[in-house]
Amino acid sequence: MQNVMAVNDLLAQELRKSFDQNKNYVVNLLSSPGSGKTSLLEETIRRLKKDIRMAVIEGDIVGDQDARRIAALDIPAVQINTGGTCHLDARMVKSALPELDLVQVDLLFIENVGNLICPASFKLGEDLRVVLLSTPEGNDKVKKYPLAFRESQVVIVNKVDLLGAVDFNVEQARSDIQDINPRSEVFVVSCKTGQGLDSWVAYLREKVREASRRAG
Amino acid sequence: MQNVMAVNDLLAQELRKSFDQNKNYVVNLLSSPGSGKTSLLEETIRRLKKDIRMAVIEGDIVGDQDARRIAALDIPAVQINTGGTCHLDARMVKSALPELDLVQVDLLFIENVGNLICPASFKLGEDLRVVLLSTPEGNDKVKKYPLAFRESQVVIVNKVDLLGAVDFNVEQARSDIQDINPRSEVFVVSCKTGQGLDSWVAYLREKVREASRRAG
Repeated sequence: MQNVMAVNDLLAQELRKSFDQNKNYVVNLLSSPGSGKTSLLEETIRRLKKDIRMAVIEGDIVGDQDARRIAALDIPAVQINTGGTCHLDARMVKSALPELDLVQVDLLFIENVGNLICPASFKLGEDLRVVLLSTPEGNDKVKKYPLAFRESQVVIVNKVDLLGAVDFNVEQARSDIQDINPRSEVFVVSCKTGQGLDSWVAYLREKVREASRRAG
Repeated sequence: MQNVMAVNDLLAQELRKSFDQNKNYVVNLLSSPGSGKTSLLEETIRRLKKDIRMAVIEGDIVGDQDARRIAALDIPAVQINTGGTCHLDARMVKSALPELDLVQVDLLFIENVGNLICPASFKLGEDLRVVLLSTPEGNDKVKKYPLAFRESQVVIVNKVDLLGAVDFNVEQARSDIQDINPRSEVFVVSCKTGQGLDSWVAYLREKVREASRRAG
């Protein structure tokens, strides 16, 4: 297992180099199945499409439903099928890159396989790791699956439109996230109503801008 | 990987033998994080407690929150912490058995780690495998995570109290489950309102009764 991780780390560094060369800002999205990763991408893309060139790599066990949702927004989308593997690794991402014209991309999203555990252990050369937690899952999931929250710089609490109908304590979630990772940014959103998305999109826009300034 | 599975299969057979000796009917519960496995256990236990002797093995990465919820119902509960591993395997279950007085147990529940992928590959010597899918996850998860649905005899669609507020098509889910596993039993329930739980509990009660008749 340690050997697997060491090989992955090396490949992730290689990915990082090609992302730097192409001036791509790369976001790795993690969550349980059904927390709303693809919906968040759709809403984010709609809001940034006019001024930022984007592309998406979709990771799924089987099928291409999510890549088709993204392609419907006229954004390049490549589907990776892991064939049973419960996470994306750097090798899989590397194999998808030839299908994208990365020189034409400012912001590359990688949507990981729906799994709150293993994807947190595999670096993909990303600039930013984002974990989603949807309110129906319950705020106890922060403490039960700590690695994903420790290893992500951003936490998006999604589906707050359901707060009246589910048991989820936003303040408890914030406090548990803070305990695990004091530096993480938390956005509380609903991809259905749009609540909170503007702050998330403004944050991301600024990150892409900073990275582009650094790249010169 | 094949070697890992072969070793697990052998250990699962060993578990099966000791469950048979002790006349335990064993249910392995799988789902994504937050689909309601522990809530289903709580509601099932409340309804069966008077006539069936139960015990629970709880699988989690870290912590003992779920075991404490079960112990609050005066049911023996053993917590397994996988320490990062994304599923229970037969070896972990075996290591938990000395903490239970299995001769005094008719029905043993094993609540797997919250993960819709890997737990489906690991036999634990169970009689019945049950997968939960909660409505906020979306009905597309059946086709996106087929192995768990293929390898389970029962599918419990949970949180139907949220149907008005989320995008979940029950008939589509039924049809997709049917395509993947024509013999599976589907129960549509809400652990919050109690809807549908009586049918599930009656089904399980009958399964335990049949097994006990066979064991003589």
